[in-house]
Amino acid sequence: MATERTGLVVDLNSDMGEGFGAWRMGDDSAMLDIVSSANVACGMHAGDPEVMANTFAKAQEKGVSVGAHPGYPDLWGFGRRNIPFTMGETERLIAYQIGAAEAMATYAGHKITHVKLHGALGNLGQQNRDVALAACRAIKAVNPNLVCLTIALGEMEKIAPDMGLEIRSEIFADRAYTDDGYLVDRKLPGAVIHEPVEIARRILSMLRNGAIESVSGKKLPTPIHSICVHSDTPSAVDIARRLRVALETAGITIRPFAAA
Amino acid sequence: MATERTGLVVDLNSDMGEGFGAWRMGDDSAMLDIVSSANVACGMHAGDPEVMANTFAKAQEKGVSVGAHPGYPDLWGFGRRNIPFTMGETERLIAYQIGAAEAMATYAGHKITHVKLHGALGNLGQQNRDVALAACRAIKAVNPNLVCLTIALGEMEKIAPDMGLEIRSEIFADRAYTDDGYLVDRKLPGAVIHEPVEIARRILSMLRNGAIESVSGKKLPTPIHSICVHSDTPSAVDIARRLRVALETAGITIRPFAAA
Amino acid sequence: MATERTGLVVDLNSDMGEGFGAWRMGDDSAMLDIVSSANVACGMHAGDPEVMANTFAKAQEKGVSVGAHPGYPDLWGFGRRNIPFTMGETERLIAYQIGAAEAMATYAGHKITHVKLHGALGNLGQQNRDVALAACRAIKAVNPNLVCLTIALGEMEKIAPDMGLEIRSEIFADRAYTDDGYLVDRKLPGAVIHEPVEIARRILSMLRNGAIESVSGKKLPTPIHSICVHSDTPSAVDIARRLRVALETAGITIRPFAAA
Amino acid sequence: MATERTGLVVDLNSDMGEGFGAWRMGDDSAMLDIVSSANVACGMHAGDPEVMANTFAKAQEKGVSVGAHPGYPDLWGFGRRNIPFTMGETERLIAYQIGAAEAMATYAGHKITHVKLHGALGNLGQQNRDVALAACRAIKAVNPNLVCLTIALGEMEKIAPDMGLEIRSEIFADRAYTDDGYLVDRKLPGAVIHEPVEIARRILSMLRNGAIESVSGKKLPTPIHSICVHSDTPSAVDIARRLRVALETAGITIRPFAAA
Repeated sequence: MATERTGLVVDLNSDMGEGFGAWRMGDDSAMLDIVSSANVACGMHAGDPEVMANTFAKAQEKGVSVGAHPGYPDLWGFGRRNIPFTMGETERLIAYQIGAAEAMATYAGHKITHVKLHGALGNLGQQNRDVALAACRAIKAVNPNLVCLTIALGEMEKIAPDMGLEIRSEIFADRAYTDDGYLVDRKLPGAVIHEPVEIARRILSMLRNGAIESVSGKKLPTPIHSICVHSDTPSAVDIARRLRVALETAGITIRPFAAA
Repeated sequence: MATERTGLVVDLNSDMGEGFGAWRMGDDSAMLDIVSSANVACGMHAGDPEVMANTFAKAQEKGVSVGAHPGYPDLWGFGRRNIPFTMGETERLIAYQIGAAEAMATYAGHKITHVKLHGALGNLGQQNRDVALAACRAIKAVNPNLVCLTIALGEMEKIAPDMGLEIRSEIFADRAYTDDGYLVDRKLPGAVIHEPVEIARRILSMLRNGAIESVSGKKLPTPIHSICVHSDTPSAVDIARRLRVALETAGITIRPFAAA
Repeated sequence: MATERTGLVVDLNSDMGEGFGAWRMGDDSAMLDIVSSANVACGMHAGDPEVMANTFAKAQEKGVSVGAHPGYPDLWGFGRRNIPFTMGETERLIAYQIGAAEAMATYAGHKITHVKLHGALGNLGQQNRDVALAACRAIKAVNPNLVCLTIALGEMEKIAPDMGLEIRSEIFADRAYTDDGYLVDRKLPGAVIHEPVEIARRILSMLRNGAIESVSGKKLPTPIHSICVHSDTPSAVDIARRLRVALETAGITIRPFAAA
Repeated sequence: MATERTGLVVDLNSDMGEGFGAWRMGDDSAMLDIVSSANVACGMHAGDPEVMANTFAKAQEKGVSVGAHPGYPDLWGFGRRNIPFTMGETERLIAYQIGAAEAMATYAGHKITHVKLHGALGNLGQQNRDVALAACRAIKAVNPNLVCLTIALGEMEKIAPDMGLEIRSEIFADRAYTDDGYLVDRKLPGAVIHEPVEIARRILSMLRNGAIESVSGKKLPTPIHSICVHSDTPSAVDIARRLRVALETAGITIRPFAAA
């Protein structure tokens, strides 16, 4: 964590279990050898009980910490589109998925210890106070012991502690940040960083400084408990593996922020 | 229960929360004033997080005990068709739905205390040992304190106790039984009893005798802990209400078999 | 039509086939005795092949003209929510549903002659030029002989003729209009007119004047080829029947704008 | 075709467009360079309007003939499970999908000329007379000019001609046959042939003999108009490409059985 400047510890998290029926997404087996926490899709934007049980079981075998990864009920759009639910509906949508994830993890001999919002729901949770509140209420109602894994500098980070929920903040391994701490729009040049060496350099610098570095070089101080690595691009496994090696070589310990 | 011949106590259960989005099924509000236990659809054959939360909240207000009512993932077929899942898949399908129901009940301030299989899955659970086993395994893995509400004389009844699960047995208020204790096929004449007076007479007789009465008059001894009344036919509310009055008039106490 | 001041002719249309599997919505049989055109859901927001075939067959028996009623793929939201599809995706979404409706109508011995957008998609088609364009392109690509049934004074009305498509304009029987020709927001008082006598008076006045009358009394000239009556409220059948009687009593002929 | 022993002509067909939303299945681009006909999923077991339009457009560019590939409405099971629809429902399910495919092909500038049943529905269409009849009725009702691409020696082959429908018969490139002309159960050893050289040898022999060759060496005479190559296994593209080369080297012409 950013607060321990000597003996830095950080978590590596990635989205998992994003297949559905006969369809697969990403190489979960390879990613589970690299990350320390997995966010597992709960059946609404991806994932089905088979995929969930398998993912939880493999994570358990490999000592990877797991969390629920609720998204909008939108298989077609993979949870990447804003579906206009009211705040109350959003709350219940998230509650439902946390329950399903808890049961499937228990079934598979594991235990979820965190919740991270997926896709469009996650972006709204960062930027929209009402959605952040809906998510926190759902977690509080279903299981207040679950840790909120939130996008650093977002709305959930501000709200959760007042509601008695524990939070951990994540940054993205391969995404550029604006001066306001938002992700640079994917459509803009330089929004996604593809070069593994550059990814590792940037992340090490942010961890050491305890601050997000924006495209203009501005430093935005924030605790950094976890680094999100993508799992669904062709080079995902390679980038994640090289980042892990770079972090460990630099003396940083990779450890789940919330072990079961 | 059949074992207390004086001061008979029985539960009245009904399926609830079977709407989806803008669609409704049955008059849940009216039924919640009559039954003592509600089996709540979990989002796969019917029900969505809104319907579930509403149903659990209303049941809580009215002191009605609740359970998860998992079914096949088949909105189109309302869970009434056999979808060929393997036994392992069936197990995980049920586990998922129990978890979702637990979360939504907790969210709504209530607590599920039983599980009853829906539709085609319920019929298989009565007749097919493997499906009964899959259901019991799912319950045991997710929450072994949940009571199995089973069709009297079925497979789950035989398996559950050996697995350390508690069971309660139900009979159907308006369905005729074969000499083997199965339901008479709906397509045959006399399979469904429509006359409220006849329904009440039959049920009282079965409760007093501690036995199911078949179409040929054969008595099949069985514990009877609950009576299932339908909720999705035009006359459902009327039949249920008249049955409740008849039972109470006869000195029988209506009480949930598993209060929260 | 507004252009024939003597011997006025108008169509009465309603949404139909909005059930799904075991769920029903509205009383289609009763409505088919009243309206001259039916807009049939195509399986994405409501409707399934069974419901579609039944609806087309009954409409055929009763001489009711039929059209495709495409909506967003959102069973949960009944097509009433804006799902953020790109314009190209919207185009293909509509094309798909027109094809499905054409096949099911043909299967049932009928023939679709128009297309009307449903719910949120319909509202966007009225207000958003890009969505109107996407709808017109879909119709043109799949079957340019289909008539566009559009909300009077909306975007589709402006675009369709230039693309070589035929249009017919509808007004709503029970909805108040703003001075700009939009529907008054349902949440505002007076947005929905419930009184059958008032509904009939207003519609007769609009037909005779060839103009929509706004809440402030402003007259907005427009051709009026069809009147949309709702089918999904408890009083829908009664309101529609009384409107039909009022129109016929006033010497207005009810006739499909596009017979098969 | 088997009837022209000199100058043999045969079609190569494969299933395509089996992605859904963000998920992909197989390498359609590569397969479209190899096959002469593509069976395109219609949105119920796989495929969505985007995938359909893309697949039809690419097939058109590459001169590949296209057909509708209806399956059970079962995204989760990818259409590989028997969903218990009645025969009437099966008929309408197929009709719906043919209509959707016709519209999307037209939209994309192509035209479907055949129908082939997918997965579990296809297997039933081969073995069960009622399902074969349902499929033929759907085709006849929606568009009797569409050719039925059927599994050689199956039920559809027997029924279709009497109903005035044209048929073409296919064999599977990589599947072993029983003496009754059925596919050997995938679970048995030798059911699937993996060796490209053996696949080509076998197919050439069957084409030259105008007969399916069973595992025991029995010859089952049948017209062979098309060879089905799989598209969803890792080695699919390689096997298909090598089979095409082997057929062409042997002087056999690869040509769609039903060009647009």
